[in-house]
Amino acid sequence: MSVIECIPNISEGRRQDVLDACAAAIAAAGARLLDVKPDATHHRTVFTFAGSAGTVRAAVLALFDEAVRAIDLRQHAGGHPRMGAVDVVPFVPIEGVTMADCVALAKEVGADVASRYGVPVFLYEEAASAPSRRNLEDIRRGEFEGLATKMAQPEWQPDFGPAMPHASAGATAIGARMPLIAYNINLATDRLDVAKKIAAAVRHSSGGLRFVKAMGLALTDRGIVQISMNLTHHEKTPLFRVFELVKREAARYGVAVLESEIVGLVPASALAATAAWYLQLDGFTDDQVLENRLRAGDGP
Amino acid sequence: MSVIECIPNISEGRRQDVLDACAAAIAAAGARLLDVKPDATHHRTVFTFAGSAGTVRAAVLALFDEAVRAIDLRQHAGGHPRMGAVDVVPFVPIEGVTMADCVALAKEVGADVASRYGVPVFLYEEAASAPSRRNLEDIRRGEFEGLATKMAQPEWQPDFGPAMPHASAGATAIGARMPLIAYNINLATDRLDVAKKIAAAVRHSSGGLRFVKAMGLALTDRGIVQISMNLTHHEKTPLFRVFELVKREAARYGVAVLESEIVGLVPASALAATAAWYLQLDGFTDDQVLENRLRAGDGP
Repeated sequence: MSVIECIPNISEGRRQDVLDACAAAIAAAGARLLDVKPDATHHRTVFTFAGSAGTVRAAVLALFDEAVRAIDLRQHAGGHPRMGAVDVVPFVPIEGVTMADCVALAKEVGADVASRYGVPVFLYEEAASAPSRRNLEDIRRGEFEGLATKMAQPEWQPDFGPAMPHASAGATAIGARMPLIAYNINLATDRLDVAKKIAAAVRHSSGGLRFVKAMGLALTDRGIVQISMNLTHHEKTPLFRVFELVKREAARYGVAVLESEIVGLVPASALAATAAWYLQLDGFTDDQVLENRLRAGDGP
Repeated sequence: MSVIECIPNISEGRRQDVLDACAAAIAAAGARLLDVKPDATHHRTVFTFAGSAGTVRAAVLALFDEAVRAIDLRQHAGGHPRMGAVDVVPFVPIEGVTMADCVALAKEVGADVASRYGVPVFLYEEAASAPSRRNLEDIRRGEFEGLATKMAQPEWQPDFGPAMPHASAGATAIGARMPLIAYNINLATDRLDVAKKIAAAVRHSSGGLRFVKAMGLALTDRGIVQISMNLTHHEKTPLFRVFELVKREAARYGVAVLESEIVGLVPASALAATAAWYLQLDGFTDDQVLENRLRAGDGP
């Protein structure tokens, strides 16, 4: 069994008929649609689906069929930065596939999209063709409206397709990345300054752990504060290390951890690694998980 | 997807042709054979397989076909207590099934075995018809050689089948139980007395945690000692509580935990519960595990 997750974002969050057609196209391609999250304010929708490489590739192209036909960015305004009708397409390795497989898939799908729809494609994150193109924010800076000017510069030639944006569908970023874990830790205090100091201590941008984005915020209705985080590579910066570091920093202010929470989904391997660390498990491997053995191809 | 695990023990650990025929019969019935562990000294073999209720039921009957034909307990001697050609058949709920489903399956298979082979069946553990029959050790006490005398007593009538042992195949215990976790904790000391004291403190039989069996032993080649345990109900007596209690008891003797180990397989839910406890996860449910969502029947 090989499973890749794909979480495309499209620049449509209001017309239900368009979203229904996109969802139907993804399902008809054979992918397992896990979630559809429209945002009317941002005029943007996030689809989550999964399947084998072939299935996921077919589903992305089916989504382009609908989105390129239905969405015109010249008529689009919303709160979220965007440059394409299909704005961004990340592939995430889940089971029985490597990151290299997802990078290869991003390149195949990128070539398909450029040749079928004339939409220029920028590869990003693990699939990026240069370090300066790893960050989605850098690729998307200037948005749809600034794209023609940006793409006239030699350093912003796309990886696939024409050197100018598609008139109505703009350009698309296609890439490969690890699964994100949305992870929050609540502190038994209402001191927002403490939450902000801890967030600064643990996040990468201000000197903390490499694959952590964090901010401190107040949960005013509960009278407590929260370190709200995204963990962008749970194998290299694991859950338990983030939790223990936050707990230690909080103790320095005389504050206890009240609880933590995972928002949405978490890979089983992130939980198994956490259990193995706290239990000091020696020589533990994921194939000792009963369910993994049941699903593996091998017999005794 | 519904998965039941079955771990039958048969009284044959030497004749490879018999073991091969048993393994082939299990696989031919459609079950997924996960492990075969013969023990020549004990003259006994443990099979591990899994499948749906119907598949597992067919596989157990196929195993009886082979074992009742090939094994004669009048000719059998080995180190391990035993009373039947097929000695014991536990059913374990793994995924999408309840303990009640496994109890029902034990009763169905028990009735089948009695009527097809004339082998008396005692239901045990969660399937037991009386508290005095829960423990396998109590049912099996006296072994094959004492079975005719034992079964002459009114309190040892079988749950299914004749009130006397099968001439060559004896009797079989069939039941339902939680998955066992074989869990060891190694201490950074060579003091066997400390390991024995800690084992006594944490095991159920001497006043410790309800679903823990434990003994202290020396790993002489490494110069350390080990608390060797079986956890018989990981939901009610979870891994993390056992680990933390052993760690605390060891600290009382000035001894540190070196590492722990899981021998063989562990259910994913036992690791998820451990991660959730140490991370103080609030409101976490198993359907937040990405892999579980991929396998669930529901869409968005």
